[in-house]
Amino acid sequence: MAESGEKPVEPVTEPDFSKIRIVLVNTSHPGNIGASARAMKNMGLHRLALVQPKEFPSGVAVGRAASAVDLLERAEVHGTLSEAIADCGLVIGASARSRRIPWPMLDPAQCAQRAMQAAVRNRVALVFGREDTGLSNEELQSCHYHARIPANPEYGSLNLAAAVLVFCYELRKAALAEIPGDVGHGDPQWDRELATSTDLELFHQHLQEVLVALDFHDPESPRQLLQRLRRLFARIQPDVVEMNILRGMLTHIEHKLKETR
Amino acid sequence: MAESGEKPVEPVTEPDFSKIRIVLVNTSHPGNIGASARAMKNMGLHRLALVQPKEFPSGVAVGRAASAVDLLERAEVHGTLSEAIADCGLVIGASARSRRIPWPMLDPAQCAQRAMQAAVRNRVALVFGREDTGLSNEELQSCHYHARIPANPEYGSLNLAAAVLVFCYELRKAALAEIPGDVGHGDPQWDRELATSTDLELFHQHLQEVLVALDFHDPESPRQLLQRLRRLFARIQPDVVEMNILRGMLTHIEHKLKETR
Repeated sequence: MAESGEKPVEPVTEPDFSKIRIVLVNTSHPGNIGASARAMKNMGLHRLALVQPKEFPSGVAVGRAASAVDLLERAEVHGTLSEAIADCGLVIGASARSRRIPWPMLDPAQCAQRAMQAAVRNRVALVFGREDTGLSNEELQSCHYHARIPANPEYGSLNLAAAVLVFCYELRKAALAEIPGDVGHGDPQWDRELATSTDLELFHQHLQEVLVALDFHDPESPRQLLQRLRRLFARIQPDVVEMNILRGMLTHIEHKLKETR
Repeated sequence: MAESGEKPVEPVTEPDFSKIRIVLVNTSHPGNIGASARAMKNMGLHRLALVQPKEFPSGVAVGRAASAVDLLERAEVHGTLSEAIADCGLVIGASARSRRIPWPMLDPAQCAQRAMQAAVRNRVALVFGREDTGLSNEELQSCHYHARIPANPEYGSLNLAAAVLVFCYELRKAALAEIPGDVGHGDPQWDRELATSTDLELFHQHLQEVLVALDFHDPESPRQLLQRLRRLFARIQPDVVEMNILRGMLTHIEHKLKETR
């Protein structure tokens, strides 16, 4: 794969977020609407609803949305939160503040799991409040759950788009959880298959011979050297090309040593 | 928690991120530096290093940092990436792009776990590249791992501060989870601290010299050999004893070769 210049294969199926909408209530700064749209699209979400935005449509929002301007164009604009969530079977409100009446509280990962489960059959809304004051008590009480990002208690005030990003990121993680994961060493998408246990054993024999020939290793006084090298190369889990390189190095050293005799 | 009427209890101890630094390479827009600082502080991180920022210090950065301006004031500014990561035992580079030689690739949660484990005994750097072109191949090859946000393949371009936020959020999650980690390489229970980025760089220079002397490597016709060896030894993350063994082997080979002349 390396030589052919192929890139790692992306999962074939994109998650289906068509039933999940992000609702921004009474946003003051249009730039935050644009940046939220970008964060949503980065994570594959596309349904944006705005409740009484202070300024929308807006050139500032378009600028910050970058290539997510299509989400702004298709955004629904509502006069009230209850209108924006009217058809939803599950409504979760993002809340940084403590409330006099505590509500069932989720972290972003739990929020994402509930949302993805519910979205199989239901429309779901994640609701974000004003930049300065968040959601009102009344708005929070129209939510089934509240969700909170476990931020630094000394500075928990995330930018609106940053909060949207964290929840959308967790939604994407929850959605991708069942899709085979990322490219890791030894994974199916690594460019070469791994050397076998036999290959590794032969390599260690070869290595030991060369180390003796180099006067680097004295079998009579081993001082844990071979153990440490075994642990080291076990960690590498060399693939077949890498094993050929290592064996090739050893062979070259042997040839050079023979020239001396 | 909800039923008892209590608000969620904050963890008594804040996570210790003192050994983890966020490195921003060659950032073009100072606003992104400020927004990254805010994202870091929201998640409790505070060590920011900048490599050749286009414009810094900057009033725009201060504005976007909001209450995280203290991170900007204490930010280290470096001339090169290798200087910024010289003392680090673990270096992870954020990379959206595919590479011809795949590197061990982590998702943000895996990245966070490795970083928190390594940070018990070692300094750790998370490196973020330029807004438009990310990290260069050379910069990426000075990292032990690459890490990638599993974004929407149709629009995977996150704002720099958004990418920083996702990784810092996962660091905070990992730190708060207090998962009793498996005994792994680089863990607190590993017997030695890791070789630093500088150690590794010196080793690669030494290795290259020996490979040329062995007629194994021809700098005129490199055939990806050095890149593959960099990837291999990045994966090892050698500790200081192992690094001494490897350097000792190279020195012995050199001595033997000199005897032939």
